[in-house]
Amino acid sequence: MRLGRRAIFPLVRTISTTSAAPPPPAVLSVGHALRERRRFTEADVAAYAAVSGDRNPVHLDDAVARELCGFQRGRVVHGMLVASLFPSIIAASFPGAVYASQTLKFAAPVYVGDEVVARVQALHIKAMTTANSSTANRYVVKFATKCFTDEEGGSLAIEGEAMAVVPTLELSS
Amino acid sequence: MRLGRRAIFPLVRTISTTSAAPPPPAVLSVGHALRERRRFTEADVAAYAAVSGDRNPVHLDDAVARELCGFQRGRVVHGMLVASLFPSIIAASFPGAVYASQTLKFAAPVYVGDEVVARVQALHIKAMTTANSSTANRYVVKFATKCFTDEEGGSLAIEGEAMAVVPTLELSS
Repeated sequence: MRLGRRAIFPLVRTISTTSAAPPPPAVLSVGHALRERRRFTEADVAAYAAVSGDRNPVHLDDAVARELCGFQRGRVVHGMLVASLFPSIIAASFPGAVYASQTLKFAAPVYVGDEVVARVQALHIKAMTTANSSTANRYVVKFATKCFTDEEGGSLAIEGEAMAVVPTLELSS
Repeated sequence: MRLGRRAIFPLVRTISTTSAAPPPPAVLSVGHALRERRRFTEADVAAYAAVSGDRNPVHLDDAVARELCGFQRGRVVHGMLVASLFPSIIAASFPGAVYASQTLKFAAPVYVGDEVVARVQALHIKAMTTANSSTANRYVVKFATKCFTDEEGGSLAIEGEAMAVVPTLELSS
């Protein structure tokens, strides 16, 4: 299902002076964005309906989606399933990330079978230190979270912001 | 998995004067709340990880959850899975509801196996009419959305607000 994940902007890399050393990790800084493409299938929607318990016919019944809700192309993907891409992207880059908040505005429907591109972009980074340590051992990162129904620059389906606490700014490969 | 759903406050019912007539439907008004209890199991978390692609070890690995993230009781449920209770409750009462927005503040962890109570309470209701109709054919409802890790009045795990467009204020039985 995963169709790719890459940084939109080049990531900062520290230059290593020892050729035998492994390449240094990429480090998140303000402005950097990560994204992921995905197509939500009928099977995905059925699996999400089963685990969430959300069996709203707008997701499962073309006639209801069209006639009662006005979605001309029929069934739409659960908005919270599309939005799950945001923590998923953050967790893939920062295993052990802890989500603190998320705002979501559902601006346009994502129809079952459509491909979307989700993007998270670092807006602000704050280092946290504990009483026992003078160096940062956690970072609070605020991300802009957007999802488009077409290629980048296409229709905006979801927009919002997320706050997460990450154990390091080094991106997991 | 569903352990019950009921209104916290009595729902307004119109009194029928004809004993043979079916009971009139309950109608949502400001202040009314609906809630649902649920226990998220290890299988639920695994199913959600599979469909969302979010394999953050904080949800799947007790050691990481404890040592890296500081969650003393180990693995925690994906916040977005817990939050899926809000649209699920709204959709069960109002089939065909369309989600417009959701804010989420993750205030406390929900550990795998813990029971939670999610509550959605109507804060504001606005009737919408179309150019072709003088009567309302849609309602925009703003809900307070909260989830507690214990019985009502226990620890607040998630709080926020949701906005949904519903086709009727009559609650589905």
